[in-house]
Order: sequence, then structure tokens, then C-alpha cells
Amino acid sequence: MDNSHNNTSRPPLNRDTTVCISLSGRPSNHGIKFHNYLYEKFGLDFLYKAMTTSDIEAAIGGVRALGIRGCSVSMPFKQAVIPLVNEVDHSASVIGAVNTIVNTDGYLHAYNTDVIAVASLLKAHNVAPSLPFILQGSGGMARAVAGAFYDAGFKRGTIVARNEQAGKELAQQYGYDWMPEVGSLTAPVIVNVTPLGMEGGPEKDTLAFPQPTIEAAEVVFDVVAMPVETPLIQAGRAAGKEVITGGEVAALQAAEQFKLYTGVEVSAELVEEAEAQAN
Amino acid sequence: MDNSHNNTSRPPLNRDTTVCISLSGRPSNHGIKFHNYLYEKFGLDFLYKAMTTSDIEAAIGGVRALGIRGCSVSMPFKQAVIPLVNEVDHSASVIGAVNTIVNTDGYLHAYNTDVIAVASLLKAHNVAPSLPFILQGSGGMARAVAGAFYDAGFKRGTIVARNEQAGKELAQQYGYDWMPEVGSLTAPVIVNVTPLGMEGGPEKDTLAFPQPTIEAAEVVFDVVAMPVETPLIQAGRAAGKEVITGGEVAALQAAEQFKLYTGVEVSAELVEEAEAQAN
Repeated sequence: MDNSHNNTSRPPLNRDTTVCISLSGRPSNHGIKFHNYLYEKFGLDFLYKAMTTSDIEAAIGGVRALGIRGCSVSMPFKQAVIPLVNEVDHSASVIGAVNTIVNTDGYLHAYNTDVIAVASLLKAHNVAPSLPFILQGSGGMARAVAGAFYDAGFKRGTIVARNEQAGKELAQQYGYDWMPEVGSLTAPVIVNVTPLGMEGGPEKDTLAFPQPTIEAAEVVFDVVAMPVETPLIQAGRAAGKEVITGGEVAALQAAEQFKLYTGVEVSAELVEEAEAQAN
Repeated sequence: MDNSHNNTSRPPLNRDTTVCISLSGRPSNHGIKFHNYLYEKFGLDFLYKAMTTSDIEAAIGGVRALGIRGCSVSMPFKQAVIPLVNEVDHSASVIGAVNTIVNTDGYLHAYNTDVIAVASLLKAHNVAPSLPFILQGSGGMARAVAGAFYDAGFKRGTIVARNEQAGKELAQQYGYDWMPEVGSLTAPVIVNVTPLGMEGGPEKDTLAFPQPTIEAAEVVFDVVAMPVETPLIQAGRAAGKEVITGGEVAALQAAEQFKLYTGVEVSAELVEEAEAQAN
């Protein structure tokens, strides 16, 4: 398909319009605004609708039977859909969580575009897999990031999580260490996957890592995307480190998902534009 | 809900937008244009999309699980959906065919709005159930019309159909007679449910009943809707008979379906307006 961004608008809804949906416990308007904005921009005959369900098995059966092209999957369905699809991409199987299902003539192929995006960014920023890393966090996104690091060949890592059970489980899954707090730990690569520094949260002004840990690092990676310029990213930039932002992760995973559904490559600029009007 | 027709437009697509679909072997754009036009007119936060499936069981399971509010059902699924719903309205069970499914919190209620429309028109035109009738035709719509007559209390009827098997089956189902041709038959009520007089067909100029049969009738009913003024309707009017047109059937069944999905009553004028732009 032509990758150029032309300003034709999509055709009016018709019998051939391709439908994509999202399934989540609490549907938001974000995906609707993001995807439909880009459909409009590219003149794609697509429609995106957020949905929820109390019967994930029948819902995925419906996606297949109704010819719904794409299905974005959020909490609490990311694990539950795995036995319901025809094929699980490595990006999803490595962490046991799906966020994207592509339906090609009834054949459902599941992916995790968060994992794909983090893996791509590690490559794009030339982060050597031989470097030890510290990853702070133990939630769903932390599992995606840890899986991407493991998959990229990172053998030495420390998961830092106050939640001992979740932290240890995640560390053991990939043979990493676990620590309850950063303390005086240092490593060449440090990654924040907690809400520390997140807009609207109680810890929005908190630096996710101690200043000495930042100073000792080579790469500072924050998965928080709102704001993109978190205290950690600002401190990393100030200290002259290679930084990877949550904005990059969010944009890249969205672009990957969009490409899986439509076959169309979206530029980072256009993803930002679509994100800006979706929030 | 307020029945007035205001000119507010519907809100932009959002997470709460109610979705209705159609399921048919060969989806058309008619339902999409008809329903979305009226959603727009009434400012209803609804969306209508035509779909097809090769797995009707999973598709109806998906309608239920995805919270799709309404599902219009066409050939070849009108019988197959019966065991898949929670409740079958009398209008559908009397003929064993569904054309409308309403989903209320996962509870699927199936109707046949063709039967409902024909029954309403017999009442509105004061056609006495004691009158014998001749019904010409043996296809799906003929079954709906015969079922509506039977249900309205018409005990004496003759099904006229060149297809002996289908004609006899339909006649026997309700205890009516069968004849292969109209010949010199007469009855107070005559109904055409064949393509005779239909626009674009090879018999568009054919009068569906012989002139003497028309002369002898009190009520002349043609289910052909395109054109509304078929040769039969024109002859009925010329002879001063009470006429019931296919346009009335089409408009009323569509209004019934729209009301079942949305709760909103549509005037005949607005249905005509919506039909006109949908064709």
C-alpha cells in the first residue's frame, strides 16, 4: 500500500468498510480518536470502535466470525485471549500477554506491540545487550519491557519492585535478580516502568532513580509517556545520557498496531499528531 | 424517548456509541444508508454496519458478547438464528423465520418485522379476517405474508404458486388451499407476493392478477415495493378497490425494526425520505 500521507478523507461508511475494535474492561475514547483520525488522514475505508465484554471467548469468536479485522486487547483480557487465537507471535508468547489481534479470513494472529516497540527502540538507540540493566516496576508494562530486554539478549538485569511477589516472579521468569529498592544500585542501563514522574499522579515530581544511579548510567529509559519530559528524562538529558522516552514507546507501539491492521506505515510525526488530538 | 424529529446531528463516534449490524449472505449498502440517515436525523448515538459471516453461531455469539444492540437478519440466516437466541417473538415463530434480533444486556429477542408490518396493515385498512383471500407466491416473503394472515385470523385462503412443492407446503402449514394458477379464481382479498410487476424484472409490465379477479375483489394488496404503483395497484385503484401497497409494507417493517433497536418512532414520511436516499 502507498505509504504517503495524502489528505483524502475516507469514504462514507459502506458494506466494505473494514472494522477494527478494542476489547477492554473499561473502554476509553483514546483508540477511537487515534485510529479514526489516521483512517481519515490516509483516506482508509476503516472504522474503529471501543467495546467491552463479559464473555471474552464469545467476543473473540465474534471477531473471527464477523470479519472484524483487528482487535486491540487491554486489561483484563491480555492473557485470556491466548487460547482463543490461531497463532501467537513471539512478541506476545515471550511475556504471555497479547495486546493486538489481527484477523485474516478467520485466522487470528496475536501480537504484543509494546514488546515489539521496546525491542525496536533498544536497537534504534544502539543499546548493547551485553550491558546490565535495572528495571523498576512489576506491572503489566514492566513484564512487557522485561520480556523485550530478555528477547533482545540482555542476560544481566535487576528487577526493582516493592511488590516482592510480583517482582520476584518477573525476575525468576527471565533469570534476573530482584531487589525491593534501588538504594545505591547502579547499572549502565536504567529503566523506569512505575508511575513515578507521571502526570496527575501523587509522585509526578519524583525522580524515578536516585541522582547517583542516573550519573552512573549510560542509557536512561523512562516508559512514562505523560509527560514525555519526566523528571527522570530531564535528569538524564542534563547528565548527557542517551535517553529513551515513553513517548517513543507509545508512538512506536501504536504505529506497529496500525500497520498490522491496515498495512500502512505511519510516520512518528503523524502518530504524535494523532496522539495529540486523541488525548 | 422523544418522538419529535429534531435536526441535531449525532455525536462523533465514541466508546458509548451503540452499534447495530446486519448479517446476510450478500451485504448491501441499503441498511447502512437507511439506518445511519435516521440516526443522523434524530441525533442518535448509533452506528449501523452491514456484515456477513461463514459461521452464524459464532457471529450471533459475538453479537451477544460484544454488546451489539441490533442485528438485522437476511438470507440465508433467517432460520438458522432461531436456536441461537434467547426468545423468539410470535411474529417470527409463526413463520419460522427471523429478520430482526434485539440484544438487551446479552438477552437476544428475535422478531419478524415483515409479519408485524403486514398484520398492522391488515388492521389499519380494516380488512375483515372473515374474508377469503388469494395469495400468489411461495417464497420467503410469501411465507411471512401468509403467516400474518393466519395470525390475524384469516381461515380461508388459497395459495397460488407454480412451484407445487413450496406452494403446497405453505398452504398445508396454515390449512389453506393450493392452486397452481389463478385462472378464474376470485376472492374478496387478493395479494401478490411474486416479482410480477417489479421494476427491472422481465415481468415488470405484467398485471399480477387477471382483470376479472381484480374486479371481483374488495381489497387489492401488492407486496412489490419498487415501484409502489405496480400495474396491479394501478388497476386496483382504477377499479375503486381498497389498495395496500408494497411501499406501505417496506416502510412499516423498517420503522418497526428501527423502533425495536432505538426505541424511537419514525413517521412514514421520514421512512420514505430515508428510503429514497438509501436506494
